[in-house]
Parts: sequence; structure tokens; C-alpha cells
Amino acid sequence: MIVVVGKHRADLVEVAAGTELRFVDSFDDVPLESVEAVIGRIPADLLAKAPKLRWVHSPAAGVDADLSPEMLASDVVLTSSVGNGAIPLAEHSMLLILMLNRDVPRWMKAQAERRWERFTHGELAGLTLGIYGLGHSGLDLAVKAKTFHMRVIGVRRRAGEPSPYVEQVSFEQLLDESDFIVVTAPRTEDTAGRFGAVEFARMKESAYFVCISRGGIADDDALLDALRTGQIAGAGLDAHGIEPLPPESAFWDLPNVIVTPHNGATSPGTVRRGEEIVRENLRRFLSGQELVNVVDKAAGY
Amino acid sequence: MIVVVGKHRADLVEVAAGTELRFVDSFDDVPLESVEAVIGRIPADLLAKAPKLRWVHSPAAGVDADLSPEMLASDVVLTSSVGNGAIPLAEHSMLLILMLNRDVPRWMKAQAERRWERFTHGELAGLTLGIYGLGHSGLDLAVKAKTFHMRVIGVRRRAGEPSPYVEQVSFEQLLDESDFIVVTAPRTEDTAGRFGAVEFARMKESAYFVCISRGGIADDDALLDALRTGQIAGAGLDAHGIEPLPPESAFWDLPNVIVTPHNGATSPGTVRRGEEIVRENLRRFLSGQELVNVVDKAAGY
Repeated sequence: MIVVVGKHRADLVEVAAGTELRFVDSFDDVPLESVEAVIGRIPADLLAKAPKLRWVHSPAAGVDADLSPEMLASDVVLTSSVGNGAIPLAEHSMLLILMLNRDVPRWMKAQAERRWERFTHGELAGLTLGIYGLGHSGLDLAVKAKTFHMRVIGVRRRAGEPSPYVEQVSFEQLLDESDFIVVTAPRTEDTAGRFGAVEFARMKESAYFVCISRGGIADDDALLDALRTGQIAGAGLDAHGIEPLPPESAFWDLPNVIVTPHNGATSPGTVRRGEEIVRENLRRFLSGQELVNVVDKAAGY
Repeated sequence: MIVVVGKHRADLVEVAAGTELRFVDSFDDVPLESVEAVIGRIPADLLAKAPKLRWVHSPAAGVDADLSPEMLASDVVLTSSVGNGAIPLAEHSMLLILMLNRDVPRWMKAQAERRWERFTHGELAGLTLGIYGLGHSGLDLAVKAKTFHMRVIGVRRRAGEPSPYVEQVSFEQLLDESDFIVVTAPRTEDTAGRFGAVEFARMKESAYFVCISRGGIADDDALLDALRTGQIAGAGLDAHGIEPLPPESAFWDLPNVIVTPHNGATSPGTVRRGEEIVRENLRRFLSGQELVNVVDKAAGY
């Protein structure tokens, strides 16, 4: 039996023709002993109670929340939806970069007050974009940024096909040379807290920090400090250390910070691409083929 | 004598070595009978009083304000600064497009109220961008939009090298098929009022109108009507029919309109590129070479 957490999907029934698919909202009435695969999230404590379970597909692109000790210890193959939100996340990155470079909040305040307030602002052409994490969204962002006549540098953990759009550099060079740093990396043991007081102090005072993947990669206290003391020029934050960002958080009303509510990839296109990944993996699972988007549990993504 | 309106520029003195350059704020004390060239604006009524005048260089990219009846009637060669703001205008276009597609004002309102308000928004991938005017900024915008996975269509008046990034279409197709129309054309007799009630009625209800070049190409009353009645979804306006936009204008607080104060190209880069154009033309003028950026007075740009 294959359990699908969430509402009925005719397209999956069609792919599964002949195999039992069970659409559920919770695992309360699911006979765990018969479950071979779960599309959606399964509570960690149930993993050990499903002896036939071979595959779990996470609806998320970043699987930090799926990698429980039980999941890490188990032989179950975990796949993710990584890539489904890459395009809108790259769009969101360019949006935040443009808004910060041009001080859009100043225009919007003037509009609200019916004031014609012209001012000199920057342009992106000639600036350096540093991308921390060259996965799906990072690589799509790099292509976009090149057409904004930016220099694009980046760091990645995994070796891989080099992209003609990104110059790969050391982490230190990324800090030293970037006018914008955009974090697109997953949150893992390696990346958590990677941007702290030392790193923000090393960045240019004119530089902006943008995070569109996961909170916690920046140390929020250090980031707040850097923003308040002018160690960096500002930030655009879609992903936050604590979500939802609590009303009392200082990030909300720093004048040089743009906050969006982990909302960069919330588009129908992301849903559609996520559904395609599930469909493809279900087809592969049923025909015994290798799955796509298999998570490297040790690496954390 | 060559008159330069504005502050002293050592770089021009160097280019002009040997020729008299006169830097002025007004023409009050200028001996018009000796003036051979003007870099900057000259009042229309003085043109006929400067018998030796052969060249005027406008500091503007769009020369609608320079083309007085006197200038049209005169043999003086008029050059413009066209191209100096193309890059930041293309950036501004993408900014407005992204802000409209994602309803950025909603996020900014939520941020001001410390509210975590997630919502589903669109993405640009797969949408159609229609560019009205394929000059410097229009062509740079097309290249950018392609990396946003958009279909890019456009219309241009002048024949010219086709761009591999734009599918040239009829004006009617532009209206019918565009999800965003961006006006980058100069204001001329041909373009003034080109977007009126008929055109807005023909556009998709889900489409946005963006103008970054000149006001008056849209009929503002018709545009307001289309925005209020939902004939189109919204607008992003950097150029306006009346500038500065008066405090009583209805554009300021329509919820589906983003107003910026003809400010898209106000960057140090635009100044620098404008200075380069002047320097190059001064060099050419003094050595008897053909000038660049010569305005086709009949066409209006």
C-alpha cells in the first residue's frame, strides 16, 4: 500500500493503476504493517512500525525538518521536491536585490503620502552578486543576474558541472567581494550559523545580505547587530531563524530590512512542478526504477 | 565658441584643447553670434540669433522637450543622450514587473504592521512580456526577461537588426497576448495617446501596464478608467502624463498602481554614460567626424 498524505489526486491514481493508493489526513487508521511508501510526511516515531516501508517523499524542497534521528537511522529512501520552487525563488531574489539597491520602501512611503520624491539610487550593472549555494535556485539566479550585467561569484559544497554563469570562489572571497550575498543553500549541519559576527564584519559596509532558502544559516543576533551598527547596508529576508517571525522581532522595523514571510516560492507553478516530481517518482517506484531527487541523508539535502 | 550649459568639466576642456569652451548657467551674457555648438539646452527663441550654430546636444535621452518648432525648422544638428539610462530603465522595468506580479505592496503593509501574511502569488515564468519600443532599454529588457523564462514579444517603428530575444509582432497582437506591456518608446507624434480606451479594453483583464519612458503615450484618463473598472489588473508608472504628478492625481492611491517619480534611470551610471556620449561627440565635432546619437527630427527621436 502506498499512503498519500493530502487530498485525492486522480493523476496519481492513474499512474498507480492496480496498486492501492490511500489518501489520508493522518496516520491514525493506517495499517502501518502494509505501508510500502509514503508520499508526504510521516511522524518519525512511526517509521520503526512500518517494516515494509521503502520510500518517503517529502513535499518540501529543503528536508531539514524531515531528517529526524529515526529517518537518519532508517534505510528508507527519502526523496524531496527540490527544484520545484527554484524559478520563483530566483525571481524573489532578484526582486529583493532590486528593492534594496533602489530603496523601494522610500518610494512606497512617498506614494502613500502623494509625494513626488526623486532621488539618486544605484544600479545593479557592474556590481558583484555572491551566491551561497549553487543548487537549482542559485544557478537560475546566476543566469538572471548575468543579464543584469553583474559579476556573479558563488560557492558550492558539492562538486559538479561548473556553470558558465558563475565564477566559483572561496567563502572568504564571497564575503570580501560581494555587493549582494544571496543564501540559497539548504540548512544542514554545515551551513547552520555559517554567517555570524565574523562573517558580517568581513563583508563590505555597502553590501546587502539576502536569504531565500532557510533561516538559521545566518545567526540572527549577529545579523541584527550588523544591520544596526552599519557593518552591512541592509538585508532582504524571506527565510527566518524563527518562523513565523514573531511580532516582537526587531527585523520587522529596521529601516534597511525587507521582510517577506517565507513566501518567495508560493506560486501555482511551484505546486505544479512539485506534483510532477511526485508523479515521476511514483511511476519510477512502481516500475522499480531509480528515483529522482534522492536525499543524501548524511549531507542533509 | 562652444557653450556648455552646466558646471565646469575638466574632461571636456581636455578634449577641446585649443577651442574655446564656455561653461554657463544661462545664455544671458553669451555672444550668440560666435556660438558654434551648445552642449545642453538653448532656449528656442535664441536659435535664430546664433547664425554659426551647427550642433546642439541634449542632456536628455528623449528629446520631445527639445523639438521646438524653431528646432524643427532649423538646420542645426540635434544629438541626444539616448542609451545613457537604458540599463537602469530595464532594471526598473523588471522591478515594477516583479512587484506587480507578487503584490509587493501587500507584503510591505504586512511588514509595517509586523504581520506574517503568506499568500499565493504568481511567477513570471511562462508569462508573456510585450515591449512597446525596441530601442536601447527595450532590447536590454528583452534579454533580462528571457532569463525569467518569459515569452518576449515587441513592436518597433524603425526597421533594424532583429533581436534574437524578441519576437516582433503587430500592435494588436501585443495588446491581445501580453501579460505585461512595458512602454519604452519615445514620445512622438506617432506614440502620443497610442494607448487609449480601445487599447486598454483589448488587453487581458489579468494584464499589467508599465511605462518607463514618457507620459502621454497612454491617455491617462483612459488608463485610470481601465484600472478602476478592472479592464486591466494594474500598472507600474515611472513616467506620467503630468510631471511632477500632482498631489490630487488619482494614480497615487489606486491599490493596483505603483508610482515612482520618473526616477528609474537616476543613477551615477546614467550620468557617467551621458558624460561619455558628450565627450565622444565633442571629439567628433572638433575633428569633423559624423556625430553619434543624431536625432531624426521628423521622427521625433
